[in-house]
Amino acid sequence: MNKPLNPAHNLAVDGARLWDTLMETARIGGTAKGGINRLTLTDLDRQVRDWFRVQAEALGCAVAIDDMGAMYARRKGRRDDVPPIALGSHLDTQPTGGKFDGTLGTLAALEVLRTLEASGYETYAPIEIVNWTNEEGSRFAPALIASGVFGGAFERDWAYAQKDRDGTTFGEALAAIGYKGPERCGSRKFSAFFELHIEQGPILEREEKDIGIVTGVQGVRWFDCTLTGRDSHAGTTPMAARRDALVGAARMVEAIDRIARSHPPLAVATVGMIEARPASRNVVPGEAHFSIDLRHPDDATLETMEDEIRAALAATASDLKLDATLDRIWSQAPIPFHSRCIEAVRRAAGLCGLSAREIVSGALHDAAYVSRVAPAGMIFVPCKDGISHNEEEFSSQEQCARGAQVLLQAVLDFDRQLAEGF
Amino acid sequence: MNKPLNPAHNLAVDGARLWDTLMETARIGGTAKGGINRLTLTDLDRQVRDWFRVQAEALGCAVAIDDMGAMYARRKGRRDDVPPIALGSHLDTQPTGGKFDGTLGTLAALEVLRTLEASGYETYAPIEIVNWTNEEGSRFAPALIASGVFGGAFERDWAYAQKDRDGTTFGEALAAIGYKGPERCGSRKFSAFFELHIEQGPILEREEKDIGIVTGVQGVRWFDCTLTGRDSHAGTTPMAARRDALVGAARMVEAIDRIARSHPPLAVATVGMIEARPASRNVVPGEAHFSIDLRHPDDATLETMEDEIRAALAATASDLKLDATLDRIWSQAPIPFHSRCIEAVRRAAGLCGLSAREIVSGALHDAAYVSRVAPAGMIFVPCKDGISHNEEEFSSQEQCARGAQVLLQAVLDFDRQLAEGF
Repeated sequence: MNKPLNPAHNLAVDGARLWDTLMETARIGGTAKGGINRLTLTDLDRQVRDWFRVQAEALGCAVAIDDMGAMYARRKGRRDDVPPIALGSHLDTQPTGGKFDGTLGTLAALEVLRTLEASGYETYAPIEIVNWTNEEGSRFAPALIASGVFGGAFERDWAYAQKDRDGTTFGEALAAIGYKGPERCGSRKFSAFFELHIEQGPILEREEKDIGIVTGVQGVRWFDCTLTGRDSHAGTTPMAARRDALVGAARMVEAIDRIARSHPPLAVATVGMIEARPASRNVVPGEAHFSIDLRHPDDATLETMEDEIRAALAATASDLKLDATLDRIWSQAPIPFHSRCIEAVRRAAGLCGLSAREIVSGALHDAAYVSRVAPAGMIFVPCKDGISHNEEEFSSQEQCARGAQVLLQAVLDFDRQLAEGF
Repeated sequence: MNKPLNPAHNLAVDGARLWDTLMETARIGGTAKGGINRLTLTDLDRQVRDWFRVQAEALGCAVAIDDMGAMYARRKGRRDDVPPIALGSHLDTQPTGGKFDGTLGTLAALEVLRTLEASGYETYAPIEIVNWTNEEGSRFAPALIASGVFGGAFERDWAYAQKDRDGTTFGEALAAIGYKGPERCGSRKFSAFFELHIEQGPILEREEKDIGIVTGVQGVRWFDCTLTGRDSHAGTTPMAARRDALVGAARMVEAIDRIARSHPPLAVATVGMIEARPASRNVVPGEAHFSIDLRHPDDATLETMEDEIRAALAATASDLKLDATLDRIWSQAPIPFHSRCIEAVRRAAGLCGLSAREIVSGALHDAAYVSRVAPAGMIFVPCKDGISHNEEEFSSQEQCARGAQVLLQAVLDFDRQLAEGF
């Protein structure tokens, strides 16, 4: 511990090698439109896992698998009794996913280890790449299932019982591809966890920032709303005699949009699903259903927004003689990342001479669940037009390389701090 | 022609007999909830047709069937060379229809003939009950198919080729129940056609009027509207960066409602169907579709409303950075009824001492298509809460009897005018 660590400043990832690796693995499940269809625990997922294991073992890493299928590839440090500094993301994709979501974070972690190995750099703590199982949730709900079990948000046996559309359980699918490991998921300790990810939004690109220093994940509240009036004939019911549930829903869609805009710049609110019944062209709808997705980094603001929505709903229902119900079906409090991780990322970006801004993640990521049991942090890089979960998803070779470079330096920064006892 | 006609003033329908007849036939296809499920050209339709033929023949009527299955039951007049004064409606129902829609007009016509027969009253022109095939359009589209062929709106062979959900054609179903007659639909002439119907709206009940003197059928325009923005992540896309098609659709639903209310009291506008895509709770909808149903008795007002909707759509699309298309998929100009028929109904209501108001029909009826080839008119009676196309549809025995009484007197009024050469 007293021996000075190797100078880290000169260490640089190989952007071309990272890019080649991204493009190479993108062929496993590659789609005609340039995306990836690599659903979790399919044979394609097995192929990319096998590939990953071979690459990690080629670097001299020991690869462990836990009973949720999460993979841990460890490069030794000077002190193997110290919990590793972990970094990674996921290799599963949406059915029409892009080449960067999850993959960038996992393969950039591999690039970090390749860089360390190539330079012979010795870290204080072990450095461990993690590939989390079923981040996407496209085949098995919920999303983030392995990191959720790791962080204590879900029970392992409940996760095993989740079924895909064909009735196959998560547990069966995991065993079928040979990735149900012996280690209990969550038993492993991390000194920290860093995840590099594409932003999946437009902010960094719009502000021409290279790096997002992610301070946390915003809170989310999901609601189902139903308005009930009375079905009536579109031709014979005067406007004044109507109890049109869809007019009420429309008023709420606008109110929800307005409420989000009244809490700038971070509040967002979305109505993604709507249904009018009986859904006939010449019947005034007596029933309307819609979803609400509210997000903000601050729980008090979420509470205020919910209050404002409830007030708008009461006014709308009263005004249009409708009955209204609003059910909160899910609530996820905001998750702040660990200050030591945030500062490590900030210093790393500065060391690399990159432009950076703080940013709150709009989406949940594996790091959010890991943060329940270990210090965690995230690095965002821009993606074109903010498009994600789409075969057109794109970040350039340079953007990916900058993210990987900050990931490397953040890990080494944390490692130095850890060695020095903070 | 010079011989004075019998005095008609004393003639009165038998309200109890009409009610009993309504309740008796309601058992053919009667539902547990008190409605009728008697889809056109089913065996239940055959049963009620057979019943109707027996009743008409018992009155001494000659029953003819045309090649669209329309039934004509004629009571002779003094001048059988004069085209008959026709009256009637339809005996088919919606799948969850009520006991009055169509049935009242047909069975009240039967009650009129029973009253004439019982009193020995001799009319100048023959009086003829019509039972039109497939008014509802629930099994075979379009609705009003037989009166449409009669009035020249549809081609018979096109009508024959229309299929139900099982792939059976209208022509096959018509032959299968034995009601494809020899007479060419539309070859028959009428001196006039009167149709009694429940209002299917709330106006008469609200204003406590016994009788609606129907002056015509309002015009209808149907549209499909599509708004296109961009799908984006509900968590990561700031409000300012969104192109939310559903927010645009919501603004249009409200604008359409407002535009109808700005042309009181007769304009109505309805959005009955709406869809947001990709219809995911956490995706900002990049696409929204909805229907528009516009109605007004005056074509110029319809035109103005359409212009106002197009202007609102252009403003909404520009404001929210959306693309918009509005397709007019159907247009039915307003149909005025014949002044002689309207006046006959007005005088009949006065003669019967009933409260009446002019009203424009919000829905199409067989009389609308017949009006293309013969003077036509309609009589409305109130129905509870304006509810129709519903098993709860209800008009009281007294309301039905009053309608039938006005129908009787309107027919006799027209007959006297006809005898006197107007």
